[in-house]
Amino acid sequence: MATQFGRIGGAKLKSPALTSVRWKSGPYGYTQAKALVFSQYGEPKDVLKLHTHSISPSLPSSSILLRTLVAPINPADVNTIQGTYGIKPKFTSLIGTPEPSAIPGNEGVFEVVSSPPSSSGLAKGDWVIPAKTGFGTWRTHAVAPADGVIKVDKEGLNPLQAGTVSVNPCSAYRMLRDYADPALREGDWFIQNGANSGVGRAAIQLGRLWGYRSINVIRARDSETATQALKDELLALGADHVVTEEEFMAREFKDRLAEWTRGTGGTGVRLGLNCVGGKSAQTIAKSLGTSGTMVTYGSMGRQPVALPTGLLIFKDLRFVGFWLSRWADGNTVAKARTVNEILDWTRQGKFKDTPVVDIPWNWETEETPLKEAVQGTLEGFRAGKGVFVFGET
Amino acid sequence: MATQFGRIGGAKLKSPALTSVRWKSGPYGYTQAKALVFSQYGEPKDVLKLHTHSISPSLPSSSILLRTLVAPINPADVNTIQGTYGIKPKFTSLIGTPEPSAIPGNEGVFEVVSSPPSSSGLAKGDWVIPAKTGFGTWRTHAVAPADGVIKVDKEGLNPLQAGTVSVNPCSAYRMLRDYADPALREGDWFIQNGANSGVGRAAIQLGRLWGYRSINVIRARDSETATQALKDELLALGADHVVTEEEFMAREFKDRLAEWTRGTGGTGVRLGLNCVGGKSAQTIAKSLGTSGTMVTYGSMGRQPVALPTGLLIFKDLRFVGFWLSRWADGNTVAKARTVNEILDWTRQGKFKDTPVVDIPWNWETEETPLKEAVQGTLEGFRAGKGVFVFGET
Repeated sequence: MATQFGRIGGAKLKSPALTSVRWKSGPYGYTQAKALVFSQYGEPKDVLKLHTHSISPSLPSSSILLRTLVAPINPADVNTIQGTYGIKPKFTSLIGTPEPSAIPGNEGVFEVVSSPPSSSGLAKGDWVIPAKTGFGTWRTHAVAPADGVIKVDKEGLNPLQAGTVSVNPCSAYRMLRDYADPALREGDWFIQNGANSGVGRAAIQLGRLWGYRSINVIRARDSETATQALKDELLALGADHVVTEEEFMAREFKDRLAEWTRGTGGTGVRLGLNCVGGKSAQTIAKSLGTSGTMVTYGSMGRQPVALPTGLLIFKDLRFVGFWLSRWADGNTVAKARTVNEILDWTRQGKFKDTPVVDIPWNWETEETPLKEAVQGTLEGFRAGKGVFVFGET
Repeated sequence: MATQFGRIGGAKLKSPALTSVRWKSGPYGYTQAKALVFSQYGEPKDVLKLHTHSISPSLPSSSILLRTLVAPINPADVNTIQGTYGIKPKFTSLIGTPEPSAIPGNEGVFEVVSSPPSSSGLAKGDWVIPAKTGFGTWRTHAVAPADGVIKVDKEGLNPLQAGTVSVNPCSAYRMLRDYADPALREGDWFIQNGANSGVGRAAIQLGRLWGYRSINVIRARDSETATQALKDELLALGADHVVTEEEFMAREFKDRLAEWTRGTGGTGVRLGLNCVGGKSAQTIAKSLGTSGTMVTYGSMGRQPVALPTGLLIFKDLRFVGFWLSRWADGNTVAKARTVNEILDWTRQGKFKDTPVVDIPWNWETEETPLKEAVQGTLEGFRAGKGVFVFGET
């Protein structure tokens, strides 16, 4: 469905519209703005509304006016709208909606369009990303306190790269670095399901940069050819092995795993990343070596993780969860450092964007295609992550 | 079944037979000994055999001859015989069995009956416990290297107290101290199922000594009166609250829990100890506060632990396993320190023995009652832990 919105893939965004946009201006210097909002939980197509409002030119002294460049649609955003997410947004009337509403979207990159207070270290034209989750990025403009954003050096980057770094790549980074005990070292193995997701692709690439070796589990595609193409794509990113869920759960997998990890002196696979749950998570757990850790960060299959007691007791496995918001909201400085480290690799060509489906959002764009793009996010296979790309009038 | 063997309860063992035993002596100073052995996995009643052998008076210079005082029957011992335990014993012909065999029993206390090498720090008459698991304690005598045992100060203790300290109380001690992150502090709450087990009773008492507060889940007994009596017993040991599994899983429990832990500033219950699995384990997990830890150390219900993904991710819960053998076998010095600390509290009357069912083992005792006592361990409610009490001729 989403492919109607345009090209697929992480190609550079070179549209001049992104740097010289002509948004509507209201009278007396007011900025005309639009935002997706919801005032009750439900399916995105039912509850999302496109709200038009205007922003006064007289901002509070510590605030800045931002213009959105890109804002991705992450599964967590959809779950937030559905009311099934771990944190509930605040419904307010701040932007003049008829009912108290929330603006979805936790990720994105913005251009500073007002002159920020000099103490902020920001300048007009700078690119910034939200410091914390719950920012509400699905809107053409935002007013934010200067300390509510993190500056990213735009040199050598396109907006898509800066606008998709802080959720998936950050999650992969922290899970690979913070959970194995002791920490993973060069040559260590990790295993992950959902390996072709944004997090999965980031983990493969970061793992390769750090010298970790990866076993990657994917769902088989419609055809052998498509499955092989996806395997090849992940191998090209730096995956050591890629298997389908069926190959992963087959009896022979145990022997293949033993063969692959033979050189580890019995340590085996030290870390597992799980975003699927159910049987797949259990197989991840069984694939771990003694004292391994499985980090759960998602639940695509909506099945709980069932753990045989023997794995917990005799194999000394540890099962933990990772929630980016908890980490990021408690560690703004570390978030800024992580983001900038990844963006450095992006500039150097060592870290590749995840495939995306652009969803253009212009002044004339109507409500229906926007909310359908959101609705499509959790349904079936999509060629890439949906990203609102703002700018053309 | 086991009650046929005698008195119930942890009363002091004062039988003179325990200090002046007349075992059979063979010719030329040989010691006549008996051991329960098994040479294949199966149900204890089917595979256990009582084997008679003799021990030469000329021991290797670093070895000592031990006489067994008491040796408990722990569930792990039975699982080892069944072949379902996490570690398999070595089958050998060391004590002259017709087939290579293993001697079950991981816990017990022994009296040194030979003159040990002076470098060992041991003397004739001292009491010792095995340094590591897999010792094989279900026998009248053992020959062991001097560094294979830990000396316990027998002053003020009866053999039952020394012979049951190293599995259940040690497990409770380590789980309460080593798993919550950060460590539990005075006033913190923990919750446990199987609370009337040996580990459960030890956890209640140790928790009370350290100022931790406990919520204790038990299976209801045959009658209201019996259930209340058990609750009262645990409350007397220092439990803050005792509930049945039914009360625990009822809808109202959530409110009771909130009421009990109101003073914790939202921290809630920080540690859960699970030896049941299945639904009970899941309820333990749901009872934990943010960033709580559930330690699984057993699986009485034989059901896997099913964890809703949301608990892992949004509540930042951590699920780990505890296996005493892993800890004890890697930390002999710490084990000695832990055991002696608990025995100090025992001497001071601050730590009470767990209820036991004595199973007398004399020279004339035949194979059948011994193996039936083992078989009975995992079946139904028993008034206490079965303990072989050695000595009378």
